[in-house]
Amino acid sequence: GSSATPCASCKLLRRRCTRDCVFAPYFPPEDPHRFATVHRVFGASNVSKMLQELPAAQRADAVSSLVYEATARMRDPVYGCAGAISYLQQQVSQLQVQLAVAQAEILQRINHPSPMDDDDKAYSSLVMQNDLMSTLLLQECLCFCNFLKIGKLRRKL
Amino acid sequence: GSSATPCASCKLLRRRCTRDCVFAPYFPPEDPHRFATVHRVFGASNVSKMLQELPAAQRADAVSSLVYEATARMRDPVYGCAGAISYLQQQVSQLQVQLAVAQAEILQRINHPSPMDDDDKAYSSLVMQNDLMSTLLLQECLCFCNFLKIGKLRRKL
Repeated sequence: GSSATPCASCKLLRRRCTRDCVFAPYFPPEDPHRFATVHRVFGASNVSKMLQELPAAQRADAVSSLVYEATARMRDPVYGCAGAISYLQQQVSQLQVQLAVAQAEILQRINHPSPMDDDDKAYSSLVMQNDLMSTLLLQECLCFCNFLKIGKLRRKL
Repeated sequence: GSSATPCASCKLLRRRCTRDCVFAPYFPPEDPHRFATVHRVFGASNVSKMLQELPAAQRADAVSSLVYEATARMRDPVYGCAGAISYLQQQVSQLQVQLAVAQAEILQRINHPSPMDDDDKAYSSLVMQNDLMSTLLLQECLCFCNFLKIGKLRRKL
C-alpha cells in the first residue's frame, strides 16, 4: 500500500496505509465490501493478529476463508458457517444410506436375476423421468428387506 | 451473573459481572475455555454486539455456532470452518456420482437380467467383504458405458 491509494482496510479505519500494511495485499481499494464484512464479524485487530501469525504464503487463503465465514455469519447471524456444515453432514449421511441401499439392490439382482416385474417397470420409468426423490423412495421400499438380510449376513462373516 | 461468581467472560475480561450481563447465561464460570476461544477469534465486543442483535431465544444457538467456528479456526488457522465445508462438498459430489452410477447399474440389470458372470462374482464378493472403495471402483468401471448410454437416452426424451 502507499499513502496515495490506501487499501480498503486503511480507508475504512481512516488511517495511513504504510508500505508494510498487513491488509494491503489482500484488501485492494476497489473492493471495500470484503474488508467491511470481516471487520464487522472478526474485528480488524483480530484479523491483523491472525494474518501476522501465518507465513505470507498462506495469508491469501486465510483471508478468503475469513471473508467466506464472515459472509455466512452476516447472512445467517444465528448459525453462520456451522449451519452449512450441519446441512452438508445430513446430506452426506442420506447419500451414504441411499448408496448402501442401491448396492444392496444390485447385489440382490446379481444373486437373483429375474425378468422385469411391475416394480421394475415403475423404477425404470421413474429413473427415465429423472425423478430422483420418487426413485429413491421406491428403491428404499423395495430394498429395505434385502438390505436387512445383507446386514445380517455381513455381521455373520 | 452476580458479583459473587462472575461468568467466564467477565472473569477473563476482569470486569464486574452485572445482572444484565449478555454473556453470563451462555458462558458459566465452570467452563472458561469456551469464552477464551470465541474472544480470541471474534473478540468480546463483536460477540456481545452479535448477541445483542439477536432475540434472546436464539442466543444459545448463536453462541454454540460461534464456539464451533472459533474452535475450527484455532485448529486450522488458514481454512477454519471453510475447510470442513469444502471437504464435505467434495464428499457430497462423489456420493452423488456413485449413486447415479449405482442407479444406472440397477436400470441396466432391470432391462437386461442375466445369469451371474465373473464380474458379478467379483462385485458380490467385494460387497460381502465390505470393501467399499474397491466395490465402487469396480462398479464405476462396469457401469460407465451403461451410464453414458442412459445419459444419451435421457437427453433424447
